[in-house]
Amino acid sequence: MDLPSFSDIQEAHKRIKPFIHRTPVLSSRQLNRLFDCQMFFKCENFQKVGAFKFRGATNAIQLLTADQKKRGVITHSSGNHAAALSLAAAISGIKAYIVMPETAPVVKKNAVEGYGAKITFCKPTLEAREETCRIIMERNGSTLIHPYDNFNIICGQGTAALELLDEKPDIDIVIAPIGGGGLMSGTSTCVKGINNKIKAIGAEPLNADDAFRSFKSGKLIPSVNPLTIADGLLTSLSQLTFSVIMKNTDDIFTAKEESIIDSMLLVWERMKIIIEPSSAIVLAVIKENPGYFREKKIGLIISGGNVDFRKLPF
Amino acid sequence: MDLPSFSDIQEAHKRIKPFIHRTPVLSSRQLNRLFDCQMFFKCENFQKVGAFKFRGATNAIQLLTADQKKRGVITHSSGNHAAALSLAAAISGIKAYIVMPETAPVVKKNAVEGYGAKITFCKPTLEAREETCRIIMERNGSTLIHPYDNFNIICGQGTAALELLDEKPDIDIVIAPIGGGGLMSGTSTCVKGINNKIKAIGAEPLNADDAFRSFKSGKLIPSVNPLTIADGLLTSLSQLTFSVIMKNTDDIFTAKEESIIDSMLLVWERMKIIIEPSSAIVLAVIKENPGYFREKKIGLIISGGNVDFRKLPF
Repeated sequence: MDLPSFSDIQEAHKRIKPFIHRTPVLSSRQLNRLFDCQMFFKCENFQKVGAFKFRGATNAIQLLTADQKKRGVITHSSGNHAAALSLAAAISGIKAYIVMPETAPVVKKNAVEGYGAKITFCKPTLEAREETCRIIMERNGSTLIHPYDNFNIICGQGTAALELLDEKPDIDIVIAPIGGGGLMSGTSTCVKGINNKIKAIGAEPLNADDAFRSFKSGKLIPSVNPLTIADGLLTSLSQLTFSVIMKNTDDIFTAKEESIIDSMLLVWERMKIIIEPSSAIVLAVIKENPGYFREKKIGLIISGGNVDFRKLPF
Repeated sequence: MDLPSFSDIQEAHKRIKPFIHRTPVLSSRQLNRLFDCQMFFKCENFQKVGAFKFRGATNAIQLLTADQKKRGVITHSSGNHAAALSLAAAISGIKAYIVMPETAPVVKKNAVEGYGAKITFCKPTLEAREETCRIIMERNGSTLIHPYDNFNIICGQGTAALELLDEKPDIDIVIAPIGGGGLMSGTSTCVKGINNKIKAIGAEPLNADDAFRSFKSGKLIPSVNPLTIADGLLTSLSQLTFSVIMKNTDDIFTAKEESIIDSMLLVWERMKIIIEPSSAIVLAVIKENPGYFREKKIGLIISGGNVDFRKLPF
C-alpha cells in the first residue's frame, strides 16, 4: 500500500495555502499551571467551516483532473467533512453531492446547503448511504471523496501539524484526536518527517477505543457500538489509516467521557474559545496521564469548534 | 468636574502596558457578509480575568501612593471588577478587600479568592454593601476603588479603544456597551481624542436603558428594576460617567433581549469565541439598526467572556 510521505504533506500545504486559514497557535498560562506542562493549541476550530477537514477536502479537490472537476464530487457524511467538501468544491466551481441520513440535524443540512451542495437524503444506515452514493456516481460519474480513507485527504490533514511545528519547532509531543484516523495519519507522518524525536500521540475516547485496541494488538479492530459525546470520533480506522498509524504513531491514550466534558469546559472557561468534544479529547488524555506529560512541551491539534449549543453536557 | 482627557488615557496605557494582555482584533467574513458592514472585534474576553475591567483596575492600583498601597484597596462588587481588582492588587503585592452579597455565585467567590483577595459577605442590598465597606475602610484605612465612578478606572478602560484604533485607524464608528458608563466614558474620550470624525456609539439593553434615557433627556436618570441577560449592564451612570458620555458620545442605541441572545449565539457559532451577553449588545444594536451601520467600518469593544455555562439562554 502506498502511504503518504512527509513531502506529500509539504506539497499539499503549498497547494492548499491560498484557500485555507493559517490558524493561530494559542497558549494559556492558567492551563499550563493547572496541568504542569506547556501546551500549544493549534486552533483548527478557527479554520474555514470550523474544522481541520477543510484542509484535506481542499487538497483532494485541487488534485482532481479536469474531467473529474466537470463531473463533481460526492461523499456520504453528515458532519464536518460534508461541509468542508461542499465549500472546497464551491470555491473551485465544482459540484458537490452529499448523501445524508434523513435523520441528520437541520443545522448540518443548512450548513451544507449554504455552501451550495446538492443533498440526497437516505435511510440512516451505512448500506443505504453507500447504495445511494453508488446510484448517484453511476448516474453522473462524480468522484467519491472518502472522509479519511483517501491518500489526498490524509496529506491535507497533516498540514495543521506542519504549521504548528513551523511555529513551535521545539515541541516534545504532538497529540491529535483519532476517529477514522485521517488526522492522526497526516499528523504523525508530518511529525516524524520533521523530527523523529518528537512523539506523535493519538487521543481516543475510552468508549470508542477501536484505534487503541487495533494499535495495541497490531490488528485492525472495527468500532462496535461506540457511545461517546465526541461524535466526530465514532468511526473505525481504514486499512490505509491503520497502516500509517502503526508506522508513525508512538502511542495512543484513551480518556473517559467525564474527562472529555471537563476538558471542554476548562478550555471554554479559561481560553474563551469554543472547541468541540472531539477536540477536547486531546486535553483529556493529558488530564488522565499527568505523569507522562509533566513539564513537556506539547502541541495539541484542536480539530474543530462545531458544537450544538442546545445539547451541552453541562 | 475634572473629566479624563485623551492624554490621561495615553498615560494610563503606558502605565498598565507591562501588566495587561494586548488583546487581538478579530474579524469574520461571514458576519461581515451577514450584516453588510466591516466589523473589527476588540477581544477583551481574552484579557486577564476575562474582561476589560483589568485595565482600569490596574491603572487605579498603579496610581496609589506608597501609603495607600500599604493599606490595601476595597470594593463592593460580585462581578468582573472584583476579580480584576483582586488580581491587579495581587500582582503588586497589595491587599484587596472585596465586599460581596452572601448570595453571590460560588464561581465568582472562587475566582476572587483564587486571586488572594479577602472576601467579606453581607446582605444582598446596596445599603448593606456600602455599610460593610465603610466599616472595613474605617478599620484598616483601605482605598475604595469604585468600578466606574473613578477617574483612573475610566482612563484604564479607554485603553482598549486606544489599541483598537492604533491597529485599525480608518474605522468610521466605535461601539461599546454601557452599564455604569466607565468603559463608554474611556472609549468615547479616546475615540474623540484620536479623530473627532469617528463616531462613538453606546449600546445598551432596552430593558436597562437608563443611559439612553439620560442621554436623550440631558438629565441623569437612574436605572429602575432593570431586567436583562446582560448582567454587567444593570448599573446606573454616575455623575462623572454621565458628564463624560454627554460630552464625547455621539449617540446611544438600545437592543431587545432576543437580539442580544441571537447576537451572542452568532458570535459563538461563527467566530468560535466565547463572549458574554453584556458584550453581545454591541452586535445586537447593529442587528437592530442595519441602515445606520451599512457598509461602515465598525470597531466593537467586546467587553468580556465570563459566562455561566449552566445558565445559557439557548
